[in-house]
Amino acid sequence: MNLAFTREEFEARLAKVRAAMVERSLDLLILSDPCNFYYVAGYEAWSFYVQQYLLVRADDDRPVWLGREMDARGARLTTWLRDEDLHTYPDSYVQSDERHPGQFLANFLRERGWHKGRIGVESQSYYLTAKTQKVLEAELGDAAIVDASLLVNRVRAVKSPAEIEYMRQAARIVEGAMATAIQHTRPGVRQCDVAAEIYRALMRGTPDFGGQYASSPPFMPSGERVDTPHLSWTDQPYASEGQANFELVACRHRYHTQLSRTVSLGRPTDTQRRLEAAALEGIEAALTAARPGARACDVEAAWREAAARHGVRKSARVGYAVGIAYPPTVGEQTISLRPEDRTVLEPGMTFHLMPAVWQEGASIVITEPFVVTETGAETFCRFERKLFWTE
Amino acid sequence: MNLAFTREEFEARLAKVRAAMVERSLDLLILSDPCNFYYVAGYEAWSFYVQQYLLVRADDDRPVWLGREMDARGARLTTWLRDEDLHTYPDSYVQSDERHPGQFLANFLRERGWHKGRIGVESQSYYLTAKTQKVLEAELGDAAIVDASLLVNRVRAVKSPAEIEYMRQAARIVEGAMATAIQHTRPGVRQCDVAAEIYRALMRGTPDFGGQYASSPPFMPSGERVDTPHLSWTDQPYASEGQANFELVACRHRYHTQLSRTVSLGRPTDTQRRLEAAALEGIEAALTAARPGARACDVEAAWREAAARHGVRKSARVGYAVGIAYPPTVGEQTISLRPEDRTVLEPGMTFHLMPAVWQEGASIVITEPFVVTETGAETFCRFERKLFWTE
Repeated sequence: MNLAFTREEFEARLAKVRAAMVERSLDLLILSDPCNFYYVAGYEAWSFYVQQYLLVRADDDRPVWLGREMDARGARLTTWLRDEDLHTYPDSYVQSDERHPGQFLANFLRERGWHKGRIGVESQSYYLTAKTQKVLEAELGDAAIVDASLLVNRVRAVKSPAEIEYMRQAARIVEGAMATAIQHTRPGVRQCDVAAEIYRALMRGTPDFGGQYASSPPFMPSGERVDTPHLSWTDQPYASEGQANFELVACRHRYHTQLSRTVSLGRPTDTQRRLEAAALEGIEAALTAARPGARACDVEAAWREAAARHGVRKSARVGYAVGIAYPPTVGEQTISLRPEDRTVLEPGMTFHLMPAVWQEGASIVITEPFVVTETGAETFCRFERKLFWTE
Repeated sequence: MNLAFTREEFEARLAKVRAAMVERSLDLLILSDPCNFYYVAGYEAWSFYVQQYLLVRADDDRPVWLGREMDARGARLTTWLRDEDLHTYPDSYVQSDERHPGQFLANFLRERGWHKGRIGVESQSYYLTAKTQKVLEAELGDAAIVDASLLVNRVRAVKSPAEIEYMRQAARIVEGAMATAIQHTRPGVRQCDVAAEIYRALMRGTPDFGGQYASSPPFMPSGERVDTPHLSWTDQPYASEGQANFELVACRHRYHTQLSRTVSLGRPTDTQRRLEAAALEGIEAALTAARPGARACDVEAAWREAAARHGVRKSARVGYAVGIAYPPTVGEQTISLRPEDRTVLEPGMTFHLMPAVWQEGASIVITEPFVVTETGAETFCRFERKLFWTE
């Protein structure tokens, strides 16, 4: 057993989750999101492509892991749960037309008398599936099955000192990867070769600690792709003009820290300089606005007003809560820095301020992850905040 | 627009999908699986962490993409769809408590009169979500919403020559990454530093073509983790005894080819040699059994009988169909090489023969991806099939 946190920290997390369950009158919570497996139990194997369930009961301090037979060893190695609380279904339930793990789960619950009352499921998680919810509703006629999506995600919003320390370590790693990206980006170099160096830096980490696979690949569009989010590299060489964007993310003990910068290929154009000015002033304004008591929407408003002075606007959110992540998303899916989100910021909340600007044929991607402190906000990274450019 | 396949190949795919829809009496198919987005339309951005839908109608040869506002450019750049068939919902629908993209989709369908008849959804896809299906059922009272999971996945089973060529290219990449892994694995070297070299090799690819991010990270357990599947590396150094497993996967134009080998740290033990013998004979028997007309279960039976002669058995499937992949799984989720799967093999089907053996404290992971040919089976990789070991 190699836990990244103390037993006490896991117990405190579980207590918070159970309190949130009581508030929602839930008797049982069936978790599917691997981030929540990690948060509550420490479980960290890449097994979420098959059905697996972490069961938390409001009146019991021992969560139960139910997964595929071959993954029980991973649960034994990586969680604080007791061996007798690890249960498995046979491999014949995996991707079968005849059997569904949800049926196994329903039987499991019935045998223990846990099949009644109010049962929360994560209906918005990628890893429950609509089919599973249908199976559970059909099998558990005595229960009220309710959507408890994001219940645990919301508990995760405020980070402990230990969690923040891992995000700081991930920040050291992502800084190194960004320096590597900028160093290797030159006209004529294949984009995939720069991606190779970035990945190498992300995994090597520092002499003191290494990196892990992250929730998402580097996004690094260039050429005709440079105005388009969510694209990765190609195997074409960088051109001698235009720009390259780098949205990088490092992972340490499943905690993620991101950093994005744009590199101009050649001397920056006026458009690039204008977007840079908007980005830098917007970020400065947003970081000044972020403090305990401010609302998520206040941070966005500060960014928006500063950027507007440069004629720049953005219809998408300018940031989101971050911490633990597994594919496909680095965000916690809870708080967004946008006009309608009135969540009040608290010390220990962590965000990726991500005000990328995408325009037809142009973009700027300069971002800063930060933690809300007792008095304001502190960025995780120490990396020059500007538009970089190659000679 | 940079298509990895000809327009004719996309049209042939769509025709097959529509024929399968007619067979199931479906009027409309709402796709959520990003592999199926790529297969049908070419769409390849990492945007599947938000809701997006690819709509295929049985009586129309123009699929419709509906996604997040900022992702429309990616659809324009990477698909063969016409601009007027790309539609978006506003960013305020993203991860909102008040609005759901499924409502937007339902309105969209109503406006076009596509909200009636039999509508297929991918209820077992990671990316539909249970919540979306509930929203659609509530909104589309005039339709029969049925589970059409894997309909397109099944169409994908038999690969074209162009698809097989990309898997061959991915094979070249994964061979290079495996050679790199074996070369760097030495007692005292940090596992994360070997992971760094593996990733570098996977992305650099060859001088002729580079690699892309794959559906899964390398799995490379060692030390106390060596008997446990689905675990990645740590930042601890390799010990001077025991072993290291490497399950690697390379990606080329979203087509994946895998390769796994075990490296003994020091001279192999008798247990390792016995597991090696079982693995090698099992693989040889399975590859001999794999040919057109044989069933998936016949391949497994051949492996099982050969391995049993060495006292080795395995309760999980020994392989699965492969091709296009996105996280979280490299498998196509259709055909499994296991006793109950009677699918008859056809030329062009592609599998990862993955008979990893996990025992308490021991394991062997030697695998071979292969394509079914007109007369038998051909492995994608040319990589020495044996237990490797460090001096």
